[in-house]
Amino acid sequence: MQDVAEAAGVSLKTVSRVVNNEPRVSEETKERVKQAISALGFRRNDIARSLRRGQASSTIGLIIEDIANPFYSSIALGVEQVAQQYNYMVIMSNSEEHPLRERELANALLRRRVEGLLIVPAGRDHSYLLPELQLGTPIIFLDRPPINLPADVILLENQGGARKAINHLLERGHRRIGLICGDPLVHTGSGRTAGYREALAGYGVPIDETLMYFGCDAAPQAQAAIQALLALPEPPTAIFTTSNRISVAVLRFLYQQRKQLAFIGFDDFDFADLLPLPVTVVAHNPVEFGKIAAELLFARLNGDSRPPQRLILPTELIVRGSGELPPSNLH
Amino acid sequence: MQDVAEAAGVSLKTVSRVVNNEPRVSEETKERVKQAISALGFRRNDIARSLRRGQASSTIGLIIEDIANPFYSSIALGVEQVAQQYNYMVIMSNSEEHPLRERELANALLRRRVEGLLIVPAGRDHSYLLPELQLGTPIIFLDRPPINLPADVILLENQGGARKAINHLLERGHRRIGLICGDPLVHTGSGRTAGYREALAGYGVPIDETLMYFGCDAAPQAQAAIQALLALPEPPTAIFTTSNRISVAVLRFLYQQRKQLAFIGFDDFDFADLLPLPVTVVAHNPVEFGKIAAELLFARLNGDSRPPQRLILPTELIVRGSGELPPSNLH
Repeated sequence: MQDVAEAAGVSLKTVSRVVNNEPRVSEETKERVKQAISALGFRRNDIARSLRRGQASSTIGLIIEDIANPFYSSIALGVEQVAQQYNYMVIMSNSEEHPLRERELANALLRRRVEGLLIVPAGRDHSYLLPELQLGTPIIFLDRPPINLPADVILLENQGGARKAINHLLERGHRRIGLICGDPLVHTGSGRTAGYREALAGYGVPIDETLMYFGCDAAPQAQAAIQALLALPEPPTAIFTTSNRISVAVLRFLYQQRKQLAFIGFDDFDFADLLPLPVTVVAHNPVEFGKIAAELLFARLNGDSRPPQRLILPTELIVRGSGELPPSNLH
Repeated sequence: MQDVAEAAGVSLKTVSRVVNNEPRVSEETKERVKQAISALGFRRNDIARSLRRGQASSTIGLIIEDIANPFYSSIALGVEQVAQQYNYMVIMSNSEEHPLRERELANALLRRRVEGLLIVPAGRDHSYLLPELQLGTPIIFLDRPPINLPADVILLENQGGARKAINHLLERGHRRIGLICGDPLVHTGSGRTAGYREALAGYGVPIDETLMYFGCDAAPQAQAAIQALLALPEPPTAIFTTSNRISVAVLRFLYQQRKQLAFIGFDDFDFADLLPLPVTVVAHNPVEFGKIAAELLFARLNGDSRPPQRLILPTELIVRGSGELPPSNLH
């Protein structure tokens, strides 16, 4: 440790402050210490451990969007099951989709000396994590890739999953297919929209922008979108939604209005099979997603030094009835 | 701190080990140090803080049964929202309903220096937490009371909620009401069963033990129970289930078998209002539950020294259709 302090030209105390993410260290000093650690080939955890006299935190940090969303609570379950096997515990936090909050949480977790981070990112720039990554703290991104940071990422087959759904509707004769999507700038939204466009193009069906609604993650926006789509002079005969939350809002609206039209949603959900018209979905396994991410994190902690990995998890179309209604069945 | 070491007749290092729940300290030494701390009127957090040179962990621990159950993920959300306001983070862990694992997790959390614990207990004896409680670490029990430990507890109105449900069915003429319940030794199961018995007794309806099934938390057991109830020479005309997971399993069976009978479940759930026959439930607010528990924990951390509190949160019967079917409607 003395080596690091000497190389950086600072006191041991300052090295300790930097490694533990404590306040009151200038950015310039931080950078110098981190470069010294990096140049000497140490890993942050080794440093931290030595400063703590042999005691590692045995915790990892998990930042998700909202634990009350079953997609994220299933991921959290998978992460925790793997962490248990390694005798680690998980500090869990919700970014609520705020970029600034994601950054605050990441820093708050690192101050608590987590040995690795799993992040479903909300922000659009993750370069702030570069020094930490260079110090050897494993950081794995889930569901959306990091931006400006060469880190591991695990994604769903977004484009392919959406393409399967739209092809399924096209094969049944649908040509006017409404898209109700979340934020199109988020990786999942853009990938699923790309799959929608790609499938239509493959069938030679021109894209009609009036059938596409974005920014519909919240129920009121999703319900406004389906209402507007149904009010078109030539309404769609089928709907594709890009997430479980949007599906629920749209289906609730359709039931209340006693409207029935072909429907496929991305993400499976409880009761999709029990609704009056069972719901066809693009399914995947979020518990497995969490497990795979945590396994990669522990591999990194245990010395796996491959270049950043990018894993794509498969999706599966589950046919239940709503996606098989013919175009004529509108209203 | 030196005072504690002297009073206990041990080294400062040993005091530190005890306070940080580190291994390799005999039970007898632990007890002596804890008694010394207690006798001198210190609180564990003060001690821990001083040993850590002014740095508190700013984390709290949460032990639940299963984060993938929406009841618990909603509690976790409420806890985390309150923790954020106090600039604390939450280490979350799943006991999977194993008493031994609950104890391991509590110890693992305390070793990580959480400043307070929120526990949905799985065990039948919590005296192991008494020393920690005496050292001033706030411990709040959720959903089930502690056993052999004078700690705060927040419960649902279990007996009253079940009574409301059964009275509702009795008022509509039902006299044979099936009960499909979880573990009857767990507080929630016993309270809800007591409400069932109490309502029937109030109507002068004799208890028929052949209508009562226990140990049905898992779907296969719940489905075996409903199947057995329907196969009785004189089957029930209504069913009461004691949790969201049991409701889902039983409803899935009824739909698959195309059977319809009056039904009320304890716990609301997503889509209860959208099922072909919307489901009447005994509802409560699990996010609020988590918030209230966390607020009490932070009050304790900030010096609230009232005797152990016991709060009962209200339930509400939400009428949607399934609980209003008349007795004649069987099959």
